[in-house]
Amino acid sequence: MTDPIYAYDSLKDFALNIFKKIGCPDDQAVLATDVLLRADLRGIDSHGIARLSGYVRLWDKKRVNAAPNVRVVHESPSTAVVDGDGGLGLVVAPKAMEIAIRKAQIAGTGWVAVKNSNHFGIAGYHAMMALEHDMIGMAMTNASPLVAPTFSVERLLGTNPIAVAIPADNQPAFVADFATTTAANGKLEILQRKNQAAPVGWVQTKSGASSTDPNEAKSGGALIPLGSDREHGSHKGFCLGAWVDIFSAVLSGANYGPWVPPFVAFLEPPSDPVGEGIGHFFGAMRVDAFRPAQEFKSHMDNWITRFRSAKTIEGQERVIIPGDPEREMHAQRMAHGIPLNPKVAEDLKELGKKFGVNF
Amino acid sequence: MTDPIYAYDSLKDFALNIFKKIGCPDDQAVLATDVLLRADLRGIDSHGIARLSGYVRLWDKKRVNAAPNVRVVHESPSTAVVDGDGGLGLVVAPKAMEIAIRKAQIAGTGWVAVKNSNHFGIAGYHAMMALEHDMIGMAMTNASPLVAPTFSVERLLGTNPIAVAIPADNQPAFVADFATTTAANGKLEILQRKNQAAPVGWVQTKSGASSTDPNEAKSGGALIPLGSDREHGSHKGFCLGAWVDIFSAVLSGANYGPWVPPFVAFLEPPSDPVGEGIGHFFGAMRVDAFRPAQEFKSHMDNWITRFRSAKTIEGQERVIIPGDPEREMHAQRMAHGIPLNPKVAEDLKELGKKFGVNF
Repeated sequence: MTDPIYAYDSLKDFALNIFKKIGCPDDQAVLATDVLLRADLRGIDSHGIARLSGYVRLWDKKRVNAAPNVRVVHESPSTAVVDGDGGLGLVVAPKAMEIAIRKAQIAGTGWVAVKNSNHFGIAGYHAMMALEHDMIGMAMTNASPLVAPTFSVERLLGTNPIAVAIPADNQPAFVADFATTTAANGKLEILQRKNQAAPVGWVQTKSGASSTDPNEAKSGGALIPLGSDREHGSHKGFCLGAWVDIFSAVLSGANYGPWVPPFVAFLEPPSDPVGEGIGHFFGAMRVDAFRPAQEFKSHMDNWITRFRSAKTIEGQERVIIPGDPEREMHAQRMAHGIPLNPKVAEDLKELGKKFGVNF
Repeated sequence: MTDPIYAYDSLKDFALNIFKKIGCPDDQAVLATDVLLRADLRGIDSHGIARLSGYVRLWDKKRVNAAPNVRVVHESPSTAVVDGDGGLGLVVAPKAMEIAIRKAQIAGTGWVAVKNSNHFGIAGYHAMMALEHDMIGMAMTNASPLVAPTFSVERLLGTNPIAVAIPADNQPAFVADFATTTAANGKLEILQRKNQAAPVGWVQTKSGASSTDPNEAKSGGALIPLGSDREHGSHKGFCLGAWVDIFSAVLSGANYGPWVPPFVAFLEPPSDPVGEGIGHFFGAMRVDAFRPAQEFKSHMDNWITRFRSAKTIEGQERVIIPGDPEREMHAQRMAHGIPLNPKVAEDLKELGKKFGVNF
């Protein structure tokens, strides 16, 4: 039984109309739609249109400002802090990345920390904005606390992803985009839907014991930092998640650690905030601030070609360069459509009804 | 049977004299010694004085320039590329980090890629240089290829560490410093000396099969990226190692991937280099380029205090903040001395004889 397929354009029109209905200015609705749907195109279904009703529920609760005034509140030649004015991260993030790129054009690099924002879709979208400018892009964000530090039973960090996009010449760009946990929450959601067990090392129970129940985080358990356990380096995954949290929120003045407001509207934000909204961090580095862009990109081609042609373990088809699977999925789904889980389609139909938009 | 203990000052004098004997100018010998011994003080024994004879063997082979002219060859307001002139990484790295800090003083941040360098000791040393300036410091380096990308049998990456140092106020700084592999090579060396098996997930055989032999990398096998296997996120560890390689070497013009020259003098560098020497990458970000330093540092105190006091899994004493164990070790070893494995002590005695320096 395969999921029904929807054309990209029809999903795009639907999301665009919903964003307009909740009061997004036209240009912001277009931007939010582009960011949201890019996740579906790249195969990161957990971050795409499946989340649309979640964003709307936050708006319903007045936790999202549909028409934010995104503005710089502090800056230096190569840095800025942006106040997202409670807007959709889908809008705030690309605007902040645009500022990082403009800074880089003049200062060589640009680094923007963002406060008072919300969930920003896939990190890779924002990092990839740098590519067309012959820049390296970086994006990270903190998120609702679901992850326990090594040796702890408390959920103090989000899955805090990092994306790095690096331009090449004839080869496609290197695009890494990954949660700093052993497995992204989206992978657990897939197992929950299928009623399947998770591998050991992805989640722990509320007392910190090993578990294979993908629902563990819903009953007081937690996701585990990249590395799975201390012996296999989970303290390094904790370092990564902590780094993302501090750059995104302590630098910007957003909420960090257990104070990050939850994405789901049915959970209230902590009553003792330490900052405003959630935080992101973006970077753009002009390649030719280091060496001539053509020279750099030729070497990137050589790097990518060498790694892609590496001898494989028997039975493995190829070594995957970061970004390969998502780029291939993007081309495939743009041509042939995007499959949606029937529950997601049902949810969107309900959403459409509420706003008088046809799904 | 415990290892004999040596006073910090006596090891320092010894290393300083050796560096002078091979022709390091006085100020560079002092710097190299400080960087090298910091590893011993912080308990990262694999990167400290145990490596001194290795550096000297590289110098013997004319692969290290004892009196380099470390210079900027390309720059923008917030970036520079530094040519290490074949010098000791122990000297080149802190000089490059100094340039990053100076850039940050003016531009808000400073980012320096280095080519034509050698092994730089512990990444944490260089990142921590930023702290006294109320800056965040970052340091990374590529290294001799020992690590196979996910699905591959070829050793294409080094253990490519990342360090991030973040200042706090009354709390000690947050200092993460970790190899982007499941286990650092130094941990395998310890198991080799003790003739003990490695946990599954640290190394693979030359055909890519799982192994517990800590000597695997010496017979065509490889270390595994952080994550251990695909199911537990080794592709993310590969992303991290690749990122470090590209920032350190493709941005700077150093050798990358399998072309990185080996640290051990008995292995010849590849005959078809793609750049010069090994590469590093450093960053410094002025905290007050984002928000007032005092405000930031107070929130860091809050962050650290909250995480350190997190409820632990039963039987675990505490949640470890990155940098805690190394700082405690530093204090302890400065006061009570540094233990050296008898083989290391014997090696240093031989080295001393060769140069007429008493060990």
